[in-house]
Order: sequence, then structure tokens, then C-alpha cells
Amino acid sequence: MHIDILTLFPEMISGIFNSSILKKANEKNKFSYNLVNFRDYAANKHQKVDDYPYGGGAGMVLTAQPIFDAVAAITTEKQTNPRIILMSPQGEPYNQKKAEELAEEEHLLFICGHYEGYDERIREHLATDEISIGDFVLTGGELGAMTVVDSVVRLLPDVLGNEKSAPEDSFSNGLLEHPHYTRPADFRGMKVPEILLSGHHAKIVQWRKRESLKRTLERRPDLLDKQNLSAEDQKILEALSKNGRT
Amino acid sequence: MHIDILTLFPEMISGIFNSSILKKANEKNKFSYNLVNFRDYAANKHQKVDDYPYGGGAGMVLTAQPIFDAVAAITTEKQTNPRIILMSPQGEPYNQKKAEELAEEEHLLFICGHYEGYDERIREHLATDEISIGDFVLTGGELGAMTVVDSVVRLLPDVLGNEKSAPEDSFSNGLLEHPHYTRPADFRGMKVPEILLSGHHAKIVQWRKRESLKRTLERRPDLLDKQNLSAEDQKILEALSKNGRT
Repeated sequence: MHIDILTLFPEMISGIFNSSILKKANEKNKFSYNLVNFRDYAANKHQKVDDYPYGGGAGMVLTAQPIFDAVAAITTEKQTNPRIILMSPQGEPYNQKKAEELAEEEHLLFICGHYEGYDERIREHLATDEISIGDFVLTGGELGAMTVVDSVVRLLPDVLGNEKSAPEDSFSNGLLEHPHYTRPADFRGMKVPEILLSGHHAKIVQWRKRESLKRTLERRPDLLDKQNLSAEDQKILEALSKNGRT
Repeated sequence: MHIDILTLFPEMISGIFNSSILKKANEKNKFSYNLVNFRDYAANKHQKVDDYPYGGGAGMVLTAQPIFDAVAAITTEKQTNPRIILMSPQGEPYNQKKAEELAEEEHLLFICGHYEGYDERIREHLATDEISIGDFVLTGGELGAMTVVDSVVRLLPDVLGNEKSAPEDSFSNGLLEHPHYTRPADFRGMKVPEILLSGHHAKIVQWRKRESLKRTLERRPDLLDKQNLSAEDQKILEALSKNGRT
């Protein structure tokens, strides 16, 4: 996979690519990336990339020309037909399913906005996808793009050291994860549940399933509606509800 | 406001604080921050911060001791009672309302996990808040924490140059934003809507309201349910629905 990030603030992003899993995955050639400052494509002598909005109002709007031309330069050079992803609060809400979809692609190109917004023609005539990471406002698209990149790259083959990790994560099975505990068994008077120290593998599996369902029921009942729960899970949920745990 | 970030990867974060609005806001003393590598607080000779999960399973779990002690060192030194925010996919879904709430605080302390998860005792006995930026899995809490930081800092007084920007953003009024256009009026055959070039201020306001409602109806009807729409807005929405635009 190749990833291009169009941004006015490449220095905001380079440290993220140079840390942790992204760094390792890049060094192992699991993906390549390029940071493109689209200001370099501005066809005016002051390298201006924004202008006042038609119809008035606060804030500046990113102009079409530098972004169209930066994308054209990349696709001409690479001879690819990338997913062109606009990061925007008006976009499709991002989720794990979308991460899995994007992880199948050869080439992702992210456009990170700043200021008040994008000229609408970028949205209508250039972008293939418009993604929002949530219902909150950021100063630019960089953190959103890197959030998508991080969630996608970790799904690429052989990126996570422990291959069992990804499928057992939250959302991969539609439920929140069960609690985790590690040593010591007694930390300043706070104890690990007995069952986890018991060595009864089947009982531990059962406890974890129940805790996962319980946590999802308490915190995110909206996730349960989307699930095809097994008869056993439904029974556990009913029991939890009766106990007044919600 | 002071912000502490507990992380094993400070180099992932420093570039974000040194860019754009966060950099400017920090230089103008609108907030201060500190990156704390909690590995420095590990009370064992190999500075280990993780261990195997009780009960078995894939992945490593962050141990309680380094994180408890790092938080204690900060609160003892600062003599404050910070919001202690655990970034986790199991957390409360983050939104603009939560950003506004956190923007009122004096001291925010973020704990960024990595690996399989946190020892549950951190969650139960230390954190005051648990936040998820969305239903997707990241390799660590850093991007989530910085997303929260970015959305909060831009709400602090005098941070945004143009004070009109924040309240007019998406979500601040519960709707998605209307389209923006800037020069040129004709970009390679793609034209700006006539109305925006007309100079009729009242008609432009009306057009923007309609486009904002239309976009929200088409893309995020879930947001409309949460709104107390005016009679006029409801009329516009009814007309839009009848026109089969959804």
C-alpha cells in the first residue's frame, strides 16, 4: 500500500509516521508514504492556497487549484487510481468496517483541510470519499487522516507482531472488550478477580464473554442492536438486565 | 489550562504541539503542556511497563504501578485535581459537547495506552473519564488524546484568530455546514452557484440554511433527531423530503 497525505503542515505528521507500529511497518516495507505540501502547487506568486468565501462570512476557504493540481501530479506519476479521501466533519462517520475496506486498497490519498473549509468543487469533482472521524471540530484534517492511517495500517498483513491481536479487538466482534488484568494480583489493596487466577480456562472464557456483554450493555447499548447475538449471549444479556446492572 | 500527556511515545506527539493552532496558542500562553513518558516511573530494573494478561490471551497489558506513580508525581507537584482521561475504545464516545465541557477545566491529564489494553485497576481507581474518539481500533491512545486536545484548545478564549469561526462550525448548531466556495467563479468549467455571486445577503443566508439542512438530511439524518428545529427549518425539511432529495 502507498499513502499520500496532502497537508499544509507536514511537520505535524512526520513524527507520527516515525513512531511505534507505523515506523516498524514502514521499515518492513508493509507500506510506503509521502507527505505533500499542496502549497507547492499553488499557481500564484505568493503561494496562496485560500481565499475569502463567496457570499461572505467568517474564515478562509481552501481554493481548488493547488489541490486539484497536487492530486493530478501524484496520479500521473504513480499511474494509479487512488481512493481520494477528504477529511471533513461533514463526511461519512468512520468505523472499523471502513478501516477494513480501506485496508484492501493499493493507494490511499488523503486531503487534509484547514481553515473554514474546502471549495465545494474539491468535494464534488475530485474526492472519492469523504470521512469524518467524529462529531467534533478540529483545526485541520491531519489528526483525522493519521487516525485513519493508523487504523488501516495495523490491519495490513504481518504488521501486528501478534497476529491474534487484531481480530480480538473491540469492534471486531461488535462488542466492547472485557477487562484486562496483569501482575501483581494485589496492587496496593486492589485485587484481580479470583476467576482469572483459577486456571479454569473454560470458566475464564465464559467470564470474559459475560464482562464484554455487560460492558457493552452498560456503556454502548447502541452496539448491541447491530449484533447478531447467539442464543447464549442473549440469555446472558437478559440475566444482566434483570439484575438491574444497566 | 495545563495539559499533561502520559505516553510511551512522546516523539509521536511533539510535532503536533509544534504546528499550526496548537503551536500559536502555546506561544501565546493560552495553555501549557508536558509530555510524560511513564516508563520513567517503572519501579523495576528493566523499566518494564507491561506484562502478560491474567487468564491468558494474546497481547500485553499495561501494568498499574508506572501509571499510578506518574499521575501521583504530577498531582503532588502541581497541587491540582485534574481530569484524568483514559483514551480507550471502550470509553464514552467523544463529541463537541464533551469538548466544550473539557475546555472549562484548569488541568487535563491524558493517559495513552498501547498494546492490548490497561490493567483494569487504572480504569477503576485512577481515571475520572474514559474517552473513545470512535468505533475503530488504533495502535495507541496518542492520536485520540491529541484529537481531544486539538478540539479543546481551539475553544479556549482568544485561540482562534477569527472569533466568529468556532460558533459557526459544524455541530455547534447541531447541523452539518453548508458548502463553501471561493475564487475563481469558474474553475475549469466548474461553476459557483449564481446565488452566492448575487450580493443578496438575505437570500444567501436562506440558501446556506437550506443547504445545511439538506446536507444533514442526506448524510446524517441522525443529527436532525437531536435538534430542536424551528418551524421554518421543519418546513424546509419537509419540502426537501417531498422533492425526493433524500
